[in-house]
This record gives sequence, C-alpha cells and structure tokens, in this order.
Amino acid sequence: MTGTAPDLMRAAYIDSVGPADRIRYGRLPVPSTGPTDVLVRVDAVAVNPVDTFVRSGAYATPVPFPFVVGRDLVGEVALAGPGAAGFMPGQRVWCNSLGHAGRQGSCAQYATVAAERLYAAPRDVDGEHLVAAAHPAASAWLALFRHGRLRPEETVYIGGGAGNVGGAAVALASRAGARVVATARAEDAAAVRELGAAEVLDHRAPDLVERSRRAAPHGYDVHLDTSGHGTLADAVDLLAPGGRLVAMVGLGSGPAGLPVSRLYTKDASIVGFAISNATTADLAEAAEGVVRVLRDTPWRPRIADRLPLSMTAEAHRRLEAGVVRGRLVLTAS
Amino acid sequence: MTGTAPDLMRAAYIDSVGPADRIRYGRLPVPSTGPTDVLVRVDAVAVNPVDTFVRSGAYATPVPFPFVVGRDLVGEVALAGPGAAGFMPGQRVWCNSLGHAGRQGSCAQYATVAAERLYAAPRDVDGEHLVAAAHPAASAWLALFRHGRLRPEETVYIGGGAGNVGGAAVALASRAGARVVATARAEDAAAVRELGAAEVLDHRAPDLVERSRRAAPHGYDVHLDTSGHGTLADAVDLLAPGGRLVAMVGLGSGPAGLPVSRLYTKDASIVGFAISNATTADLAEAAEGVVRVLRDTPWRPRIADRLPLSMTAEAHRRLEAGVVRGRLVLTAS
Repeated sequence: MTGTAPDLMRAAYIDSVGPADRIRYGRLPVPSTGPTDVLVRVDAVAVNPVDTFVRSGAYATPVPFPFVVGRDLVGEVALAGPGAAGFMPGQRVWCNSLGHAGRQGSCAQYATVAAERLYAAPRDVDGEHLVAAAHPAASAWLALFRHGRLRPEETVYIGGGAGNVGGAAVALASRAGARVVATARAEDAAAVRELGAAEVLDHRAPDLVERSRRAAPHGYDVHLDTSGHGTLADAVDLLAPGGRLVAMVGLGSGPAGLPVSRLYTKDASIVGFAISNATTADLAEAAEGVVRVLRDTPWRPRIADRLPLSMTAEAHRRLEAGVVRGRLVLTAS
Repeated sequence: MTGTAPDLMRAAYIDSVGPADRIRYGRLPVPSTGPTDVLVRVDAVAVNPVDTFVRSGAYATPVPFPFVVGRDLVGEVALAGPGAAGFMPGQRVWCNSLGHAGRQGSCAQYATVAAERLYAAPRDVDGEHLVAAAHPAASAWLALFRHGRLRPEETVYIGGGAGNVGGAAVALASRAGARVVATARAEDAAAVRELGAAEVLDHRAPDLVERSRRAAPHGYDVHLDTSGHGTLADAVDLLAPGGRLVAMVGLGSGPAGLPVSRLYTKDASIVGFAISNATTADLAEAAEGVVRVLRDTPWRPRIADRLPLSMTAEAHRRLEAGVVRGRLVLTAS
C-alpha cells in the first residue's frame, strides 16, 4: 500500500432509507482499502437523480449502513493497493459507479474505489466538468453506441438536445460521423446546432412528428428521447428498417402504447438499459467517451449550482423538487 | 444452361391485388432462367398467411403482374444456370423466399429461384415435411437464434408450443441446450414435452403468469409468444435481466401497453422481426436449422390438408377464414 490517509473523515450518509432529511453529515471512519482498491481523496461530487432513488429506497439495491450516498467523484489518489496497477498517490482520478450494489458512495472526504472502476483524469480536462459530465455523458455514450449500436453515416434522433444527456449525445453522435436531428426549445436551437446537430426541431411545434419525418425521410436508425416528451408509438413509426429505439430513464414510467406490428414489420427493436447495470468493461469504454466529448467537442455540462458537501441533503431536496436545470456539484474541501 | 423445360406451365396467379377469388389458375409462359438462377419443377407448395397478405395488398411489396402467388416450394431442378454452382438437373431442392419483393411465386409447375435462395433437400428428409416446415421452422430459428440470440443453458418461454412455429421452436431450443418452458392446451402437453420442453403450462390457467414466474424464478432470457394470448406487460415482467422479447407475426396488431420503466431497469429489449426482411445469408442459416429440426428432433409440421394447385384460391379462403389448424399443402402434379 503506498500513500497515507487519516482515520476519520466527514461524510454525508444515511442509517436507513427514506426522505432527504435522513441524510446526516458527520464523522465516519475512513474506509479500508483492499489489495486492488484505491482510496481517493474526494474533491467534488455531482448529484444524480439516481442518488435520490437509492437514498429513498425506490431503487432496490444493497446499501450497507451507515451508507454514504453518491455515485460520481473526481479527486486525487491517497492510497493505492499493490494490485491497483497504474495508480499512484497524487494522481487525478474520477469514478461514476459508486453508491449502489453494495458499494459505499462518494459524498465523503475519502472513498474507496475498485481500480477497475477508477479512471485517470487528464490534466487538460477541467475536474468540475469531468465530474459533472460523468453520469450524463456516460449515459449518452452507452445509449448511442453500446445499446443503440450507432454507426457512422447513420441518422439519429435525439429528443432533448439541450439537456445534459441530450447535449452530450448530440456532440458524441455528430463526432462519430452520424447525422443528428435533435429537438430543443427554440431559444436553445443555435447552441444545439453548435454541438453538431444537422437539424434542430422546436419540441413544442404542434407538427413535430411530421417535421421529424421530413428531417429523415428514410427513418431514424437510432431514436433516443432524453426529454420524455414524445410517445412510443410515434417513435416506432419514425424508425428506419432495422432501427433501434433506446429506452432509458426519462421516457416516462407508465405503460405506453406500443404498435407491435409496426415494430416487427421493419425488424426494429426497443432496447432498454439503465447505467446501473453496466459492466465495468462497458463503463470503462464509456469513460473514454466522456473524456473525448470534453476534449474534442464544444459540449460542456450545464452546472446549475455548487454547494458544500455538508449540504448534500439540500441538494437531494432540490433535485426531488424538480426545479434544477443542470448539474448540482458538491465540493468536499 | 443444363437441363430442359417446356414453354408453358400451369400456374395460380393474379392480375391485380384483391380478394382470394382474384386468383386464376391457367397457362403462363415458363419463366426465364438467368445465369445464377435455377428453374425448379415444383412438386409441392405450402400456403402461408403471408401469401394472403401479399395477394390482398395488405403487405406492400412489389408484385409484377401476372403475379404467381406463393412463397415456399419443394421440387426438382429442371434447368441450372452456369453460375448456379452446385445445382444439377434432377436434384431435389427447396426454397422459402419466393413471391415477394419483386420475385414471382411458387404456385406453378415451374419457378425460377436465385441459387442463393435455393437449398438442397436431403434424401432422408420427407419432401412434404420439408415444404410444410419451411416457413414455420425457419421463423422459429430466426426468432430464437438470429433475433433472440438464445444460448445454451438459457431459459426460453415459448407461448403456443403445440402450434407449428411454437413446436419447431420448442424442438430447436431444446436441441440447442436451452431450458424450455412452453404453453399449450392441456391435451397437447405430453406432445410438447416430447419435443423437449422441461415444463408445459396450460395456457388457459387463470394464474398462467404466476405459474410462468415459478417455472423460471430468475426470469426468461428469451420470450417468444407465438400464440398471441399473452400481454406485453406480463411478458416484460417475466424477462430476466438482459432478456430479449421477440415480437413476430402473431403478437396482435393493436397498440399494446408497454411498461418502459420495467424494460430499461433490467437492460431488456424487445426485438421485432418479420421473415420477409431476412437476408439471404440469414435464410440460408435458418435453412440448415429447418433440415436439422426434421432430422434430429421428433418435431414434424402438422399438415391440415392437401389440395391440388388448381385449388390455390380455396386454400387462401380457408386460411383467411381462420379455421385451419396446421399447414395446407398444394401439390403440383
């Protein structure tokens, strides 16, 4: 084991699942570090809607109490286990898969991360951008390439191109050589075009479906609605032969009308995924996409506010109130 | 060009799309044979529901008039083009992709088939079984392996295990090392178990969904309902993490309630396909599956009746009346 760490740390944690005010901020022992683990001194954490689902119990996953909340982090290596190849104390790193499936979370001064879930943070990429991008850009990458199997020259529909997931998706898809048709509010259209969208449609237009069809007369090879505004039936109709509709968080939770006959007559598929199920191999591939989108495209995550780690409960309350547009970043120092 | 053929033949054809009585039976010129084509002297044809959709115009596909109806055939090579490698006059052959996408059909004394769409009919496989199996067994193969990506040791749900597609699917899946849970009428259960199903559930049981769950506590890796009895919502609930629901003809045509959130939280997908869209490469792979299921398993297609080719219109009428249980075979001699 190389490096040093104190015995105690401050952390935002819960002793049982429940509402946001269950989150306490106080002292916990610094977690132990196994032979293939890295102990990270946390600089910043981005708060995700899924963090609130884990905390409330809505998302059933093992949570050992006291349970530190939070999924993403950016920070610096404090200790590296002997089998944590390639990690050295002082190195800048980031992670986006803590705080579920039995793993403790990131909302603390220190967090133990398995080496295979930890990624180097390049010097030329801003740390706050990286942690704020970690969840939405990785989600966009997995949706487009892992589950949507998007290829160059294909046409992709991205609903909600001005949101964090949608914007990253526009930039990643365009950079990968796909033709992007996105939806956004009229006032965001120019910014979404800057990210590489060939066409941006006003998502409030009453004839949006007809405009979407005209924008891709042969249909969409991949359909990704991050906005939740569209209907499943329209989306299936807009698919090209062999098209893939990627369903992820944000598509609405009630049963939706699916025209099965229109799906099978064109060999189309609906592919559901949740980033929580991603394998470490998929997450590592997505992590390269996260760095690339920040390095090689104009897209940057929209940051709504910054709060100290001691205000984690307040961050959860704001997210659950549904009023936050952009990312909430918690700083540990 | 090797072999001989007459100038005229009898055929069942239409001059315009419409109801079954548009089908005429009379003389047409024997079709020409291109350099990579084979002219087949037809012995028997099996009638498919999709033949009636092409004839009626319900399935939009190019049909050059006068248009010979019919998709499948078994017969003997009459003429082989110089580029139709491997085919010799007198050889027994079969095909299951005529009569759509601009290709003339099989309900005639002779039919021209592109060599890549024609398969050798082994001596030890009965010709009537082969032509009757061609469509349902190829559909089952494509559903399970091409679109469902079924692997050995996985668990597959097959709704309608006593039907022609379902029975072939039970036999193929079981032979491939998968665990099969099928539904059927109680009186057919023993026969479906004979085909390799580990469990056969009565499809009329009021607690079928609960029984289906108990039969596969970890969920179904592939769900294939050939019966159209189940609901999409139940099927999605029964899927295992990463499960594939294969939607094909028979799942009902109206919009179905799809619980999208239950789909994405377990990385499940719904894969639609129609055999009409299959590539020649996929059809050739499926053709090997069709021969294997007849050679290596106890499954045989259920044949409802045999009629002469001159009664093709009557065969279409019976299929459209919805009263035929099994395959209708037309004989050309």
